[in-house]
Amino acid sequence: MKAISDRIRDIPDFPQPGIIFKDLTPVLADAALMNLVSESLVEPFRESGITAVGGMEARGFIFGALAAAKLNVGFIPLRKPGKLPAATHCVTYDLEYGSAELHVHQDALSENDKVLLVDDLIATGGTAAASCELVEKCGAQIVGTSFVVELKFLNGRGVLGNYPIHSLVQY
Amino acid sequence: MKAISDRIRDIPDFPQPGIIFKDLTPVLADAALMNLVSESLVEPFRESGITAVGGMEARGFIFGALAAAKLNVGFIPLRKPGKLPAATHCVTYDLEYGSAELHVHQDALSENDKVLLVDDLIATGGTAAASCELVEKCGAQIVGTSFVVELKFLNGRGVLGNYPIHSLVQY
Repeated sequence: MKAISDRIRDIPDFPQPGIIFKDLTPVLADAALMNLVSESLVEPFRESGITAVGGMEARGFIFGALAAAKLNVGFIPLRKPGKLPAATHCVTYDLEYGSAELHVHQDALSENDKVLLVDDLIATGGTAAASCELVEKCGAQIVGTSFVVELKFLNGRGVLGNYPIHSLVQY
Repeated sequence: MKAISDRIRDIPDFPQPGIIFKDLTPVLADAALMNLVSESLVEPFRESGITAVGGMEARGFIFGALAAAKLNVGFIPLRKPGKLPAATHCVTYDLEYGSAELHVHQDALSENDKVLLVDDLIATGGTAAASCELVEKCGAQIVGTSFVVELKFLNGRGVLGNYPIHSLVQY
């Protein structure tokens, strides 16, 4: 979607030399564009019976909360370790260097829930795949995943397998 | 607001023994309640000419993004160190143990901006005061601050001084 990609800013050598960071803060700063982004993230899933949107800390909180409001369903935060106060399910996954953990409250979702996962960007798909696993640990079903940006050359789709993936801007 | 406070969950001894954590995840999970929360956060500032909402990482991203959508203005993320890719302004502030840093993109706001700060909770007011300072470093004006929960016994109002404070639930 050109209206969105026009406002994404390339920042070279962040967070490391050789990496071009896709900066979405100019999109966040534009209210009309954010309304379009939120609507577009959920549009393919409007008739899917979604009961909750899950969003990954931290940027997924922004887009996930707005997507949940568009669908008029609740928002479920998927968080880093030590942040959620009640009993959690946890998934550990590999990063380029080391590993990371994602948590969700055990009582946040149940087997009756049909969940849309939302994040700002899918790269290698590691965080997204861990998030799908986490939602399924609660007994809930993943209906789809939705991202503002997809870095296709990193093949997140391959890692996510059969989970439906929707993205607004592809590189 | 009783509709909101009824759904806030007390979790004893988190993150440390003796602390009762106010867990807002049951509020997030209720779409109608989240709509009420978002509307109520911005209601006193509807006629204030707000041009942007700033939200603090990470839970402030959820409420801040929704508040920005309600006001039809942009959202400006205030972030932890190492997260924002372009040149930032930075404020260092004291925590109970050690210190913390908050950053904002230098070009995120200008002297023409009138900003509403939004976060989930105000306790001692340290993060909120640092956020006000950060917005002013960009040349912008703080019109007000808005929180879902205010822990009055920690006197964040004293620390925030003359900045207008709005909160939905007080303890």
